[in-house]
Amino acid sequence: MGTIVTLITDFGTADGYAGEMKGVLITRSPEARPVDVTHDVSAGDIRAGAWVLGRIWDRFPPGTVHLAVVDPGVGSSRLPLALKAGGRWFVGPDNGLATRVLERHPPESAWRLDPERAGLPEISDTFHGRDLFAPAAAHLASGGAPSHLGSSLGPGTLLRLETPSPERQADGATGSVAHVDRFGNLVTDIPSAWLPESPVVYVGDRRIDTLGRSFAEVAPGEAVLIRGSGGTLEISLRDDSAARRLDVRRDAPVRVESGA
Amino acid sequence: MGTIVTLITDFGTADGYAGEMKGVLITRSPEARPVDVTHDVSAGDIRAGAWVLGRIWDRFPPGTVHLAVVDPGVGSSRLPLALKAGGRWFVGPDNGLATRVLERHPPESAWRLDPERAGLPEISDTFHGRDLFAPAAAHLASGGAPSHLGSSLGPGTLLRLETPSPERQADGATGSVAHVDRFGNLVTDIPSAWLPESPVVYVGDRRIDTLGRSFAEVAPGEAVLIRGSGGTLEISLRDDSAARRLDVRRDAPVRVESGA
Amino acid sequence: MGTIVTLITDFGTADGYAGEMKGVLITRSPEARPVDVTHDVSAGDIRAGAWVLGRIWDRFPPGTVHLAVVDPGVGSSRLPLALKAGGRWFVGPDNGLATRVLERHPPESAWRLDPERAGLPEISDTFHGRDLFAPAAAHLASGGAPSHLGSSLGPGTLLRLETPSPERQADGATGSVAHVDRFGNLVTDIPSAWLPESPVVYVGDRRIDTLGRSFAEVAPGEAVLIRGSGGTLEISLRDDSAARRLDVRRDAPVRVESGA
Repeated sequence: MGTIVTLITDFGTADGYAGEMKGVLITRSPEARPVDVTHDVSAGDIRAGAWVLGRIWDRFPPGTVHLAVVDPGVGSSRLPLALKAGGRWFVGPDNGLATRVLERHPPESAWRLDPERAGLPEISDTFHGRDLFAPAAAHLASGGAPSHLGSSLGPGTLLRLETPSPERQADGATGSVAHVDRFGNLVTDIPSAWLPESPVVYVGDRRIDTLGRSFAEVAPGEAVLIRGSGGTLEISLRDDSAARRLDVRRDAPVRVESGA
Repeated sequence: MGTIVTLITDFGTADGYAGEMKGVLITRSPEARPVDVTHDVSAGDIRAGAWVLGRIWDRFPPGTVHLAVVDPGVGSSRLPLALKAGGRWFVGPDNGLATRVLERHPPESAWRLDPERAGLPEISDTFHGRDLFAPAAAHLASGGAPSHLGSSLGPGTLLRLETPSPERQADGATGSVAHVDRFGNLVTDIPSAWLPESPVVYVGDRRIDTLGRSFAEVAPGEAVLIRGSGGTLEISLRDDSAARRLDVRRDAPVRVESGA
Repeated sequence: MGTIVTLITDFGTADGYAGEMKGVLITRSPEARPVDVTHDVSAGDIRAGAWVLGRIWDRFPPGTVHLAVVDPGVGSSRLPLALKAGGRWFVGPDNGLATRVLERHPPESAWRLDPERAGLPEISDTFHGRDLFAPAAAHLASGGAPSHLGSSLGPGTLLRLETPSPERQADGATGSVAHVDRFGNLVTDIPSAWLPESPVVYVGDRRIDTLGRSFAEVAPGEAVLIRGSGGTLEISLRDDSAARRLDVRRDAPVRVESGA
């Protein structure tokens, strides 16, 4: 079977940009298997793109090429990048998109893409997803050597987003809301393993002390603490949006105490 | 060619959940061919998910695995299910998603998924789509025996949604709006075959008596009765949303009389 | 590898219509490789569909079948079409969707689809995407002869949208906004090659004279002229929507003068 190439962009689909990228990819690597992860990252939101990439990175098989383009700085001095870590490739702008990957996997190798070697014959000023990153991903998907695409980069030079770090205390933890999902769940950065046996959580102007295994353990509209599917504490409302009802957004502080 | 595995979820794509499911699926069944049907089912709306599954079920070839996860009761006592009917598989929660399939196809076999045998080594409390249903679908897509996944279920035990039933009368019929689509078309549950030659339809506070073969047969903004592509009466407005203009929602009653 | 069949529709995905089309396609041509370009064309907006098709047409390899269905006139007298141009196929309604393709590629051959020969055994009044166009696309994707699908059409008979034409003047150009994209960029129909060295552009009630290679060359919220990735002038705002801030929509006139 051909190599999987996932796509993560903030292009939507209605303008055809994502389609153009897939066309270039398939033309240059006919055996590649494009897999849409999302084109609905909020426009220009690198953190949201990094979140998605962090979630899916190693759910795909080793050798997968993740083509991720959330690139508000296209045309500026940000570097075009191909990065290998944890056995998978990332191709896209060096603007922090790979932050959550690099937090968990040391980079195996990193390459600064040379547009003349890696890109289409003509490269536009504003659409490197199509003109540079898609051909570079196709090259890697076809088994081409990364050295063909540009020059080696020291892994220490890769740009990482400065994301807040949760802190563990003797009797609890502090952290923040790292992501708000479609359902309005508040996904925090506090590892579930840090939760005391009877946690009490403070977020917004609310105090929540029900730790559940599912939404079904509370009444509709009530809040519940969940050991989330990404390994961190989540705050959910049954059949409703916690973000909306609790009026809480990304980066809101979260405090965990022991209620025992 | 590999087995088709369709995906129907209410996850959206922007949080990466649908991508994680596809990653698990492809990792476990490299030959499977994932096909996105939709990730835009309204959040938690099992009826809307059942609607989509009912429409697409037998448009795909026999042997297809339909992986459908609209699962507001995840973590509760609802059973995880693999069901065969009409030559295709359904994998997902036993919460009524398969209702429209079961109305037309007797179940050939049904299996209660055993998380220890069917799922990933670690199963989260809230994301069975990734941790249980995707691996089970991969197993079936690879030609694995369903008996490996869990224990056989009596088909009579499967949960079905209680959907209203249309009734045919000597001179007409009564029913309701079963689905409102993207265009604002009111898709009823009244079979087109029940329509009298000159039907008069009452819905909301409107009386509509133009039966057309297309929107083009009425003036822009006017209502027309259509023998819909799903086999039932539809009420449409040319170049506009019938749902909005007629202020009609799902479950609104619909009455058909003979105008002859 | 199987033939690529791209999909461009205004169906959304949540009603299952796009899924039904893919099911029919795969059932009839198991080797075909469906590639979603978009299902989010604005409902009934043929011009927007034509825009997307024009962008992606020759980014895909020769032999690709583009299945594009934005079909507000379904059931009227508009012809069902299979068209070859520039080495790729288009299958869909003859309503102008192929306009931008035909502007650049002379048609190689064109066929009026005969529903009895090209379609499913039963053809609904309102869903030719599933019942006629998908089976016709599958036939072509499997290498079938187009003559099997219907009768040959004179290329001169194909319907084209009347789109405004930009005009070049000695010291500038006039044109209009051809498309507004997800980011609010105003994509004009004025070829970038027509731009004078120091262009001054008038759009809405604004005068813009900064020609940049990227958004990064202006301050956040400021407007910049870009040689766009589709070969025409674009007007963008850094980190914001030009369409919203400048209150400009599709078809707004654009004038270019020389500021030198």
